[in-house]
Amino acid sequence: MSLRFELSKTGHAARRASLHTPHGKVETPVFMPVGTQATVKAVAQDVLEELNVQVLLGNTYHLYLRPGVGQIRQLGGLHRFMSWPRAILTDSGGFQVFSLSDLRKVTEEGVTFRSHLDGSTHLLSPETATDAQIGLGADIIMAFDECTEYPADGQRTRASMEMTLRWAERCKKYFEEHKSEVPWNSCQPSAVSHQENQKCIDPDIPVSDHSRRISSEHVGAAVPARSQMTQALFGIIQGGMDHALRKESAERTIETGFDGYAIGGLSVGEPRALTREIVESTLEHLPKDKPRYLMGVGTPEEIVEYANLGVDMMDCVLPTRAARHGLLFTSEGKISIKQARYASDQAPLDPNCSCRVCRRYSRAYLRHLYAANEVLAQVLNTIHNLSYYLDTMRRVRHSI
Amino acid sequence: MSLRFELSKTGHAARRASLHTPHGKVETPVFMPVGTQATVKAVAQDVLEELNVQVLLGNTYHLYLRPGVGQIRQLGGLHRFMSWPRAILTDSGGFQVFSLSDLRKVTEEGVTFRSHLDGSTHLLSPETATDAQIGLGADIIMAFDECTEYPADGQRTRASMEMTLRWAERCKKYFEEHKSEVPWNSCQPSAVSHQENQKCIDPDIPVSDHSRRISSEHVGAAVPARSQMTQALFGIIQGGMDHALRKESAERTIETGFDGYAIGGLSVGEPRALTREIVESTLEHLPKDKPRYLMGVGTPEEIVEYANLGVDMMDCVLPTRAARHGLLFTSEGKISIKQARYASDQAPLDPNCSCRVCRRYSRAYLRHLYAANEVLAQVLNTIHNLSYYLDTMRRVRHSI
Repeated sequence: MSLRFELSKTGHAARRASLHTPHGKVETPVFMPVGTQATVKAVAQDVLEELNVQVLLGNTYHLYLRPGVGQIRQLGGLHRFMSWPRAILTDSGGFQVFSLSDLRKVTEEGVTFRSHLDGSTHLLSPETATDAQIGLGADIIMAFDECTEYPADGQRTRASMEMTLRWAERCKKYFEEHKSEVPWNSCQPSAVSHQENQKCIDPDIPVSDHSRRISSEHVGAAVPARSQMTQALFGIIQGGMDHALRKESAERTIETGFDGYAIGGLSVGEPRALTREIVESTLEHLPKDKPRYLMGVGTPEEIVEYANLGVDMMDCVLPTRAARHGLLFTSEGKISIKQARYASDQAPLDPNCSCRVCRRYSRAYLRHLYAANEVLAQVLNTIHNLSYYLDTMRRVRHSI
Repeated sequence: MSLRFELSKTGHAARRASLHTPHGKVETPVFMPVGTQATVKAVAQDVLEELNVQVLLGNTYHLYLRPGVGQIRQLGGLHRFMSWPRAILTDSGGFQVFSLSDLRKVTEEGVTFRSHLDGSTHLLSPETATDAQIGLGADIIMAFDECTEYPADGQRTRASMEMTLRWAERCKKYFEEHKSEVPWNSCQPSAVSHQENQKCIDPDIPVSDHSRRISSEHVGAAVPARSQMTQALFGIIQGGMDHALRKESAERTIETGFDGYAIGGLSVGEPRALTREIVESTLEHLPKDKPRYLMGVGTPEEIVEYANLGVDMMDCVLPTRAARHGLLFTSEGKISIKQARYASDQAPLDPNCSCRVCRRYSRAYLRHLYAANEVLAQVLNTIHNLSYYLDTMRRVRHSI
């Protein structure tokens, strides 16, 4: 067993559900903060817990290059490496290969690319990307796909979609053959452990803190022991901006059979209205009893809109990246905290927000931290923006 | 009343005491973390509270230039501006003028300098530095002195010392005439407050969080209401590396009369053994019933050594600056976390430390964060180093 998706309420199109993962329950619709390099930039894990983050996204491309999958596997997997006891989803690395690496070469086998860090050459393929994600040990992993560029003509879009479908089958085959190799499913004493008498440690609890345990409330009572669970593999729907191809991609991906389905290949430069059209029409072809994940979306307005259309999971770097640039989301609209108008503003960032930043600090102070290029600006701004996104999704869930 | 210094125990030379300030009790000997620009770099105020930091240091030079003293005064003073309800000490700006600014010109009047930020010209003098510190509203403020360079010949050292003595008198005179102007001593409704019905706010509690109050335990029962208290002004002993001049500087500074005495002009390039000699001989000439502050010191070993010699207060950027460069202090010695040897090390940074970093994260993870240039590396490393310094001082206090 990998995942249990328990629908509790449905609205017009929206659904409220619980996703039971090997690392706890995730209430959906959910926004997943992005923790690219095994950290949500600038925010410590205990603060994420306090914000009630139930699932994080990790980037396979970044972790594969640094510190390396072998390293993380040896250290017990990503949960234990970053001391995050709750759920994690990793992407396949495909999107970053397209957007970050040099000298990319796509063949039927996979994608050969040069690292943006040191220029070294690597191959990501359905097999190596799945293998990497098994080594990282996230609860939910993604099939390796080709993100079709925008714009693309009909022939190119179909060819790209067909390759993604063939790759999806290879991902599933590799996954079925190797899914027992997930680090938290085995029990290997750590060679470097400083606790010599420890024979079989829970890889998700840091060595230094074995008194901490995931509360049963969080894991959920009906979930089997983690050692009996495997990762879940999601397929990705492509098909560009063509409704018919999207339908075909959905149907054939479902035929291969996955634990959940993602809508990929959007937010690649197309107009927002088109994104929405494609999301809406693709959702019609996805099974109601499996989680639906819209990748790389979006603004606060968009995540509400897509949740109401029936999307269960979303992720985006926007709240964290914008925070580091001083762009803050509030119930009264966007604030660019660098503006001089906030220099004497003693009000909290968002009077309707109860996050630890809004409870304690004034706009004047946040503006000063940003202007003075202080690291604490990144810390506090990111905490607020994440809080705003999570609150937004909480409200959506309660409205369903 | 400005400050009550209550000796509770004395060892051979060391003393254990309580310093009762308008913003709570400080147990001495104490190490004061440096919060240069109204933030201890990378660490949020609630974490500092959790670390049991009782007093922070702010840098007048930096705050004077950005966001400006007028700005901070208008916002209720530094405590309220940065939402720090506990004690603060500000330096006079003299040291930074010497070390950071361009085109410095020292005259009897004061020091004319150009801002390292925008090249604008400013004068810091005994009067303007004291005025700035009254506007910032720290609990303890420092006389404006000249930090004599090293090496300096006898004539130069005496001339510099004499000027510091004259400046000390001017600081005291200005302070006595203006000490009632401290922002937390007045009760001015804030023009920009978003709470319209609030007539007289406690300037040390953020507007957004008036339910938070400084606990009576922290303030101490015997302390008069803050509105009846003023800041404390400390004098600074100079005299270079000359024992006789140090004695003369101490005696004449004491004659002027201050609430506490600092030893300045050390850690300016002289050998460590000489620093210790000068500290030891200067301490002999300082009154036993007033706090003694050794400025800009030091390593973990040094802060223990000087506390045992009878120093009550110390500050240094070392724990915070070293943390940002990956240099971490532990009970087993210094660790440079960037080293590859830690890449697979699952042990906590310091097995004998119970800080939130050592309880949760492995060396391997901290090494990864540093190697990946993640902001969280700065956050976690700084928390640990501060914890180590504060634990060290706690042990010294308990050993007296």
